[in-house]
Amino acid sequence: MERKNTKTIHLGTVPIGGGHPISVQSMTNTPTANVKATVSQIRKLQKAGCEIIRVAVPDQDAANVLGKIRAQIHIPLVADIHFDHKLALTAIQQRIDGLRLNPGNIGSEVKVREVVEHARERMIPIRIGVNSGSLSREMLSKYGHTAEALVESALEHVAILERMGYEAIKISVKASSVEMTVDSYRLLSSKVSYPLHIGITEAGTDFSGTIKSAMGIGALLLDGIGDTIRVSLTSDPVNEVKTGIEILKSLNLRKGLKIVSCPTCGRTRINLINLTKQVEKALLPYHDINITVAVMGCVVNGPGEAREADYGIAGGDEEGILFRKGEIVAKLPERELLEALIDMIRTENPIL
Amino acid sequence: MERKNTKTIHLGTVPIGGGHPISVQSMTNTPTANVKATVSQIRKLQKAGCEIIRVAVPDQDAANVLGKIRAQIHIPLVADIHFDHKLALTAIQQRIDGLRLNPGNIGSEVKVREVVEHARERMIPIRIGVNSGSLSREMLSKYGHTAEALVESALEHVAILERMGYEAIKISVKASSVEMTVDSYRLLSSKVSYPLHIGITEAGTDFSGTIKSAMGIGALLLDGIGDTIRVSLTSDPVNEVKTGIEILKSLNLRKGLKIVSCPTCGRTRINLINLTKQVEKALLPYHDINITVAVMGCVVNGPGEAREADYGIAGGDEEGILFRKGEIVAKLPERELLEALIDMIRTENPIL
Repeated sequence: MERKNTKTIHLGTVPIGGGHPISVQSMTNTPTANVKATVSQIRKLQKAGCEIIRVAVPDQDAANVLGKIRAQIHIPLVADIHFDHKLALTAIQQRIDGLRLNPGNIGSEVKVREVVEHARERMIPIRIGVNSGSLSREMLSKYGHTAEALVESALEHVAILERMGYEAIKISVKASSVEMTVDSYRLLSSKVSYPLHIGITEAGTDFSGTIKSAMGIGALLLDGIGDTIRVSLTSDPVNEVKTGIEILKSLNLRKGLKIVSCPTCGRTRINLINLTKQVEKALLPYHDINITVAVMGCVVNGPGEAREADYGIAGGDEEGILFRKGEIVAKLPERELLEALIDMIRTENPIL
Repeated sequence: MERKNTKTIHLGTVPIGGGHPISVQSMTNTPTANVKATVSQIRKLQKAGCEIIRVAVPDQDAANVLGKIRAQIHIPLVADIHFDHKLALTAIQQRIDGLRLNPGNIGSEVKVREVVEHARERMIPIRIGVNSGSLSREMLSKYGHTAEALVESALEHVAILERMGYEAIKISVKASSVEMTVDSYRLLSSKVSYPLHIGITEAGTDFSGTIKSAMGIGALLLDGIGDTIRVSLTSDPVNEVKTGIEILKSLNLRKGLKIVSCPTCGRTRINLINLTKQVEKALLPYHDINITVAVMGCVVNGPGEAREADYGIAGGDEEGILFRKGEIVAKLPERELLEALIDMIRTENPIL
């Protein structure tokens, strides 16, 4: 798919927009002022593949420890601030890498200008993030609860920064409705060339939240829209990161191990569900390697149907086959299939 | 979203296309000839909300028991047949409700005509289902591994039926690549007005398969494409049905209970993950009721952000609130929130 051309901003060492790889981000749920707990969670998220982390900054205690947190982690830190421009000033002094702040909500233009000048000095990008739930009464009465209202509201905040000559901007317009989210980003993308942070808000728990996020983020990415993503789940944020990475992998926007496997059907003569789980587990150390592995339930059609896969196995009544790019490499008893597959992958893809 | 206008076909009592509700289907993974196991699985799927069920018919033993299976279930039965037209003839005699069969693959035109005439007599629709893995060498050399190849291949099968004046047709063009699947259906939808059965093939296990299916099916539904869906998972088919229903609900294409909930963040002062799980569990009996329930982590912003929800709770430091359509109904100690919410919903939505 062709990606929409957007400007590039830099969150610390991570470039966003301008065709750079789409980054995956998340947000901590520890009290930010608790440095130990927050750093520990960020490290877990880093390990899971999180590339940018945001923390809530509800008060001065939280703002004051941002530098301490920053010093102990290896991914850019974004401070999420509402209403209070002093918290933003402290956050900037604490050398955060990004701000999420809606300039129209922090009071007078003097206050905004103060934040912007400090952000400019340190080259700190500002994300404007408008959610469907926090639209103003004016916007709602003018446009109703629509994509237009969401986009217009975001553009008002953007205009404030543009008047001050500040363009290190990233924008999000999230709704809890998948359709409204997709409509909003499509409209926004047609109007601006700032990089976009995409996601569905209040998506729900692991099951429904994953489905809504995959639908909304997926539809936008297929359109070439989106420069950084956050999956929002009422769950351990590690799951947000895993889901985000899987979304990117599924659209070939991120390299890494991909496993394709048949649905089971009345033709399947092996325990495909169990076999696939074993393959997934055995290949965990290979999750960064850019290969596709197929686990098929049918010896006759399996290799052909999975000819796009780099490696694969297919199980039959007693005997299974090992194949590479659609060509059969060996016929084996079913119980030897898994080991033979892993051996072949290990030999041909040494982990450094 | 506006749905693409398609022709209507009938699988037994279930209409597909023409603006009828989008149905959710699945496929058994029991040996079809094992009537007891197959019926038992279909009943479980029915209970989960499955509206159409397909069974593999690999041999005559399977074909011969279709009538027995049909007599014991309450949803339309589709026979999945490859290559052997005699199995199709038996299946039709056994009073199945639909066939999945690619006419170009069952041999001579005489054989196809025989199947079509019997299908016509019993008004049995035929699904043409082309998968990216089973494209012919001719198609691949002409178009490469592309959406064009998939669509062209499907249209060749369609043309055979059209030449025989048979138009009770449904089409699928599934790939294991989300992007190729979406491109294929978009192209197909621009060329025909037959109802479309949509899904991603070989999507993988629960985690990756759910994500790929939600992305592909979601993007198409947002375009108004798709009349019936199947989520393919290497998993218990009950999970396919649950995921399919959730996809439809998330796009307001299916009525039912919806739960929205905040992601957790450093501002959250209650155990939101646990509370949301409790709400989900307590509301299981209400899954058919068309309401939206919000579980928010923030007393200040929660009711406003969730003003689209019919009912909701938001938790704070010690005290929480109960709200209805964004208006606060009661302030309560946190431990009483769950019960108060369930009580309000139960009182206002009696289950018959």
